[in-house]
Amino acid sequence: MAVSPLAEVDRQRIERLVAEVLASRLSGYGMPIALPVTVPAGTLNPLVVNISVRHMHISQQHLEILFGAGAKLTPARWLYQEGQFASEQTVDLVGPKRRMLNNVRILGPTRPESQIELAFSDAILLGIDVPVRMSGKLDGTPGCIVMGPRGHIVLNQGVIRARRHVHMSPEEAECFGVTPGDAMNLIVEHATCPLTVGGIMVRVAPGHKLEVHLDSDEGNACDLPGATGLRLVKAGQRG
Amino acid sequence: MAVSPLAEVDRQRIERLVAEVLASRLSGYGMPIALPVTVPAGTLNPLVVNISVRHMHISQQHLEILFGAGAKLTPARWLYQEGQFASEQTVDLVGPKRRMLNNVRILGPTRPESQIELAFSDAILLGIDVPVRMSGKLDGTPGCIVMGPRGHIVLNQGVIRARRHVHMSPEEAECFGVTPGDAMNLIVEHATCPLTVGGIMVRVAPGHKLEVHLDSDEGNACDLPGATGLRLVKAGQRG
Repeated sequence: MAVSPLAEVDRQRIERLVAEVLASRLSGYGMPIALPVTVPAGTLNPLVVNISVRHMHISQQHLEILFGAGAKLTPARWLYQEGQFASEQTVDLVGPKRRMLNNVRILGPTRPESQIELAFSDAILLGIDVPVRMSGKLDGTPGCIVMGPRGHIVLNQGVIRARRHVHMSPEEAECFGVTPGDAMNLIVEHATCPLTVGGIMVRVAPGHKLEVHLDSDEGNACDLPGATGLRLVKAGQRG
Repeated sequence: MAVSPLAEVDRQRIERLVAEVLASRLSGYGMPIALPVTVPAGTLNPLVVNISVRHMHISQQHLEILFGAGAKLTPARWLYQEGQFASEQTVDLVGPKRRMLNNVRILGPTRPESQIELAFSDAILLGIDVPVRMSGKLDGTPGCIVMGPRGHIVLNQGVIRARRHVHMSPEEAECFGVTPGDAMNLIVEHATCPLTVGGIMVRVAPGHKLEVHLDSDEGNACDLPGATGLRLVKAGQRG
């Protein structure tokens, strides 16, 4: 597959990218593009690292149980990947020890299967021992009770800690020399909290933009907003 | 200073060390010694990595305001460093947004100045923007309200995120080739959550035992209990 050098990307596309990155920065999601970031020559997008705070993905069936017949997700803020959004709707989670996590945001659009992504800190608060899984790999995972304004559901499975991953386009994967399932390292430079986050799984799809997703424990461990530099490099290992 | 090879350490000392490490493992603090850990030849103690969950250090004056005249801390569990303990006493913290963190444990013995150590996850829950500081460096740090069963105090300062550090004896510092204020890296091997934690500040004192202190965000980021190997290495940098 041919690599498009940045010089050949048209002006309109660059302007759109900058606008998107600035928008994600201003909304508190996405790292400032002024950070020293390292990506291979020819990579289409700047390196963006976002923290995924605890959230839920929901099926249309579950959405209607929780929010009423005919309910639809209302976008409150668009996320960096095309078509993904944080919705206005939130739910409360109840764990097996009668502890609650309130105001957990639903991300849209709806999916075939409901899934809840927690950091370990969240899971400890809720009293659930969550496994680390790639999104959608829910067999044998724990469940919880989900409370909405119009009803509740008992999820028998679907609560996970999302495994660290990076989204990228096929062209970007070629620039990095990686394929789906490879592991990468994110090097976070910081005056007091430097961290190298390993085991970041590569996810490739046409239209994806280069974006690392960490959870809040990982983002807090390195104080991501205080980072002075970010580098994403291929690891020697496969996940 | 002469380095004592492990072979010269007497049997009694080894037995005591193993007993201590096993005890710390069984209490949920400290890593299993069965883990592959790497320390230089001649290091007196095995490498122990502990997570410091949010806690408070307290002055005798503050202790008596919160728990009544003449109150003393009651050891509930001895920690790995000689003489340090988790007490039976806990307090509740109230932040500027009227949010609370309940049942925050006090560590003993008492100190000249009260200090509260939170992970960023805790600080976000409490609504406080905490700086990363070495223990005791409290100038300009935020405060909070501390509630005890017999009274409350308004701390004007003293809430920090403790900077990552490693305790060691002068002999161990010599084995690693480090001096106080040097930075080290902890390499955490893990199937899904590998992490290299940088900027671990060296603290040296006679009688200290080799022990890395991470906070709960850092420990959760790498799923420390699931680690398959630990290595502590000198970094090229000074903190």
